[in-house]
Amino acid sequence: MEIIVKSSDDAVAALCPVAESEGIATVFDRYKAQQPQCGFGSLGLCCRICWKGPCRVDPFGDGPSEGICGANRDTIVARNVARMMAAGAAAHSEHGRHIALAMQRVGKGELPAYQIRDPKKLTAIAERLQIDTKDKSVLQLAHDVATKTLEDYQNQDHHKGCHWISASVPKKRLDRLAKLGVLPHNIDATVAQIMARTHIGCDAEPGNVFLGGIKGALADFNGMSLATELSDAMFGTPAPVVTEANIGVIDRQSVNIAVNGHNPLLSEVICDVSREMNQAAIDAGAPGGINIVGICCTGNEVMMRHGVPLATNYLSQEMAILTGALDAMVVDVQCIMPSLPQIGDCFHTEVITTMADNKMQGARHVDFCEDNATATARKVIQFAIDAYGRRDANKINIPDIKRTAVVGFSAEAVMDALAQVDAVDPLKPLLDHIVTGNIQGIALFAGCNNTQSVQDESYQKIAKTLAANNVLLLATGCGAGAFAKNGLMNQQATELYAGEGLKAVLTAVGEAAGLNGPLPLVLHMGSCVDNSRAITLATALANRLNVDLSDLPLVASAPEAMSEKAVAIASWSVGLGIPTHLGTMPHVTGSQVVTELMTEGTKDLFGGYYLVETDPDLAGEKLVEVIRNKRLGLGI
Amino acid sequence: MEIIVKSSDDAVAALCPVAESEGIATVFDRYKAQQPQCGFGSLGLCCRICWKGPCRVDPFGDGPSEGICGANRDTIVARNVARMMAAGAAAHSEHGRHIALAMQRVGKGELPAYQIRDPKKLTAIAERLQIDTKDKSVLQLAHDVATKTLEDYQNQDHHKGCHWISASVPKKRLDRLAKLGVLPHNIDATVAQIMARTHIGCDAEPGNVFLGGIKGALADFNGMSLATELSDAMFGTPAPVVTEANIGVIDRQSVNIAVNGHNPLLSEVICDVSREMNQAAIDAGAPGGINIVGICCTGNEVMMRHGVPLATNYLSQEMAILTGALDAMVVDVQCIMPSLPQIGDCFHTEVITTMADNKMQGARHVDFCEDNATATARKVIQFAIDAYGRRDANKINIPDIKRTAVVGFSAEAVMDALAQVDAVDPLKPLLDHIVTGNIQGIALFAGCNNTQSVQDESYQKIAKTLAANNVLLLATGCGAGAFAKNGLMNQQATELYAGEGLKAVLTAVGEAAGLNGPLPLVLHMGSCVDNSRAITLATALANRLNVDLSDLPLVASAPEAMSEKAVAIASWSVGLGIPTHLGTMPHVTGSQVVTELMTEGTKDLFGGYYLVETDPDLAGEKLVEVIRNKRLGLGI
Repeated sequence: MEIIVKSSDDAVAALCPVAESEGIATVFDRYKAQQPQCGFGSLGLCCRICWKGPCRVDPFGDGPSEGICGANRDTIVARNVARMMAAGAAAHSEHGRHIALAMQRVGKGELPAYQIRDPKKLTAIAERLQIDTKDKSVLQLAHDVATKTLEDYQNQDHHKGCHWISASVPKKRLDRLAKLGVLPHNIDATVAQIMARTHIGCDAEPGNVFLGGIKGALADFNGMSLATELSDAMFGTPAPVVTEANIGVIDRQSVNIAVNGHNPLLSEVICDVSREMNQAAIDAGAPGGINIVGICCTGNEVMMRHGVPLATNYLSQEMAILTGALDAMVVDVQCIMPSLPQIGDCFHTEVITTMADNKMQGARHVDFCEDNATATARKVIQFAIDAYGRRDANKINIPDIKRTAVVGFSAEAVMDALAQVDAVDPLKPLLDHIVTGNIQGIALFAGCNNTQSVQDESYQKIAKTLAANNVLLLATGCGAGAFAKNGLMNQQATELYAGEGLKAVLTAVGEAAGLNGPLPLVLHMGSCVDNSRAITLATALANRLNVDLSDLPLVASAPEAMSEKAVAIASWSVGLGIPTHLGTMPHVTGSQVVTELMTEGTKDLFGGYYLVETDPDLAGEKLVEVIRNKRLGLGI
Repeated sequence: MEIIVKSSDDAVAALCPVAESEGIATVFDRYKAQQPQCGFGSLGLCCRICWKGPCRVDPFGDGPSEGICGANRDTIVARNVARMMAAGAAAHSEHGRHIALAMQRVGKGELPAYQIRDPKKLTAIAERLQIDTKDKSVLQLAHDVATKTLEDYQNQDHHKGCHWISASVPKKRLDRLAKLGVLPHNIDATVAQIMARTHIGCDAEPGNVFLGGIKGALADFNGMSLATELSDAMFGTPAPVVTEANIGVIDRQSVNIAVNGHNPLLSEVICDVSREMNQAAIDAGAPGGINIVGICCTGNEVMMRHGVPLATNYLSQEMAILTGALDAMVVDVQCIMPSLPQIGDCFHTEVITTMADNKMQGARHVDFCEDNATATARKVIQFAIDAYGRRDANKINIPDIKRTAVVGFSAEAVMDALAQVDAVDPLKPLLDHIVTGNIQGIALFAGCNNTQSVQDESYQKIAKTLAANNVLLLATGCGAGAFAKNGLMNQQATELYAGEGLKAVLTAVGEAAGLNGPLPLVLHMGSCVDNSRAITLATALANRLNVDLSDLPLVASAPEAMSEKAVAIASWSVGLGIPTHLGTMPHVTGSQVVTELMTEGTKDLFGGYYLVETDPDLAGEKLVEVIRNKRLGLGI
């Protein structure tokens, strides 16, 4: 069988033959087995919202033009995509709620495994949320911040926007959103209301349904903002750190434990406990002790905060097990392949689920809750140490592929670096360079891997085009993973790919910040729930210029958008006024009305819009053009 | 073209030729146009949860057995059905929230169009919710009841069950649900959490996903309980009333206004205002004045409370326009066919949407909110009066088909009727008859119409079998509509179809209650959101016998389950311990694990289970058998 692997990651190319020889199907095989995929679903024209269906509308006009209930292609497509936004918002916001509830209990002194590691950030958050900080202990403040945050899941007054979004974007933007009726008042209610209005026989006006979806997407933004910021207060605000990325970070001599998923509540404690259990690993025969590696966004979380190396991103998570040297894969929530336990069974790898609402057939489950975080972490690590003893040396195959990555660029870290240039007015150097054109604009890369594309490839191509055109690059989530793994998050990449203006700025700031060289080509801003960090920075710029986010030379790109979370992120990005590139074809093209609304209509409504371009070379050019036009709009 | 209409409703048979001659496609045509329907979707094996998909698992085992992410048939099926439960819960509970928010404002004196029409019920609710009633005005109490109710959308403590379910089912049942981790603590959060755990790469353990769905279904029960009870307090608790049902209630001499949907907030005011605008209709040339008729569950709401005749139920809602004599169809939320405006355009009929989140392409929108309820109602009625002037007499075709229906059997009305037999202990006569076997058991008919079945037919067949076997019959929603339209909700039906024991009881109670004859064969308990009424009655029986709901000779039947709301209802019915018949094939049979869990595994977990039987004759027999076995279990 010819192996055609849709990935630009050398580690994937190196490990796929292992899968083949072991008779293991990976995501790349499953992708092939699904071809051809259903055209109705791909166009958004399949409706399974009730049991009269499934219904399918004929895209060519020869067959039915409505479902049984009478919903036409526009209604069907709009409902499907709105529900994706709702699910994305639910996922991110559930993560956020989990953190908020934990922080509330930390404030009450109920969770000894957790602290407020960044009280300064906590105070900054409190001030942003207009909470009185005077004479309050750190714990009291943590409790109050968490309690006010939870109101964003509780408020029943439709006229009152959520606290977090209200404290996170320019006033002009808030007013615009409120006027359009899409400013979320309550995350959970907004999710439920999207589900309700897309129930059979409810909202059948596609534009109305779509706007409902956008409200959900903005609730997603709200949920991720609070998740990110509260995580910083509890676990520390990321600051630059040098580490490595790609599968070669798995160490033959160590007990290798991969943390995979999104939520840092357990992985943080695993990092803590791994230090105290290091000797146990050595005693068990692993001279390297315990080696924690990250996968997907839990990986990004611990990479940003502790420099934990990143093994890989979403699409290649199975590869970590195929090295034969991964002793445990500990997963929490989201984007975890249900195939992992099966593959783990072919090796000695313990695949351990930890969240009650996120189990897998065939995995070991160790129930985590914040009360027993330390005990859970110990148990999990012990399973890994035990598994180490069952390793089959003949099966070990760790491709020596890894790249240096300088990560940890929270908004605060970026501002701190800029403050090394201008301590009094840190934003000034950035603004000055934008005005002079040394920096033409800013691009945020976000989102997933998607088998529709060649893994990681579009990220790199588009980034190189933008960098050559002096665009400052930010990245999160699996996009950040793609850059880190492929060597675009280090200083060499800046030397190689940055245009002259950009290179000069990155070098000046890097040197001033004590990095002995430029900032990396792409600034790692965190996991996919951390996309809000880029908005923090953009809002600071917009407020300083007294403009709206839609006026800035700012674009977003999701070259491999895949998950419902990505649909939500792309959609709030549009809602916040940002031209947003999608490199995979969204499942909406069955409706001309919805497609036009997303690519054109949103320009009038929000300033932002979806820019769909599956060719990465063209996408890069188009994004440069968008930035150029935004600069013209600002008269710079 | 041969007309094959899948309906047992004579009105449908009479009006389909009109549609054909006018070149209008109805739901029956659209059903035919969709044949053959997608087998993957019908089996639940189609996954569109991310943009790597759509994925389809081959049910025959020849093709792929997993989606691209690795989710297998069990995970895919479980996620799809859990999301249906979440959407159903969202829909019902959004309706409930709407009522609760309105009641809170009534309590503050902010909504002059509304009152507390049943202060006695309000007090009963307050006591049930353990709210101190002492020295409180009706308005104050309304405010407090609404506020406590809204906590069920706000509570963030997972260990605390929602107020309403806690106040509505036996303690034994609550304990059982809490032990299984499926007692909902917050409606919105539960919906959002189901969406989150079914996001790609989250919960992949089908049983776990399914139980998550059941928690959502129980949130649906909670949402509908509060919707029903607060509606009673605001609009009056239904009591027996004699009216008529089926398309013949549309009156050639009147301005005919159909209210269609589910939420009584507008339709109640339309009923009020129609009286004061009656003369305007007469002045406009309609000697009959204004004739409000009901469709679907808004129809059931106003039928139960005001005796407003019911024109038809879900599947035949288009037929009302085809009469050529419907001047306006005013819709609110849920189960409204998006085809209505197009059909209205072929006649003179105004199709008017009223809810901001529930619009339709081609419909007139008159935005309703509680603040301007009266003005909205006036506007809507005026549009109908104006439309009357545009009627085309040549197009009028009102089949003379209608049947007497005695409706209005809230739990309170049933207890009141029983109290005529035993004022001191109203439950006693019912219990005695159950023990002696005059009444063998109780069956609740709920749910929809579904084009997979012959409209209304299964309801009638199963009901007749059960009645002949002395089972007391309750009905809600489109099931109630089916019985009302087809003459099973009147005294004649009791004479014709009730077994001897049942007939004796219905006659004794009916006579005592002053009905000059028996109670109707099927007791109309309200709209689909009113299914909680049956649980109120069942809980009273269970508590009296000190048993759980699962011990009672009580079954539910949804012969034409269709909507996500119906999926949620059937699922909470199972969750509450009730053997629950589905007459349409649920979209889960692609997974043997989920299918077995639903039909067998749930017996151990909940006592209740899904009994799937598409043949109505067999379904009737099986339900009789279930009741017989429950009686054996009780030793009666």
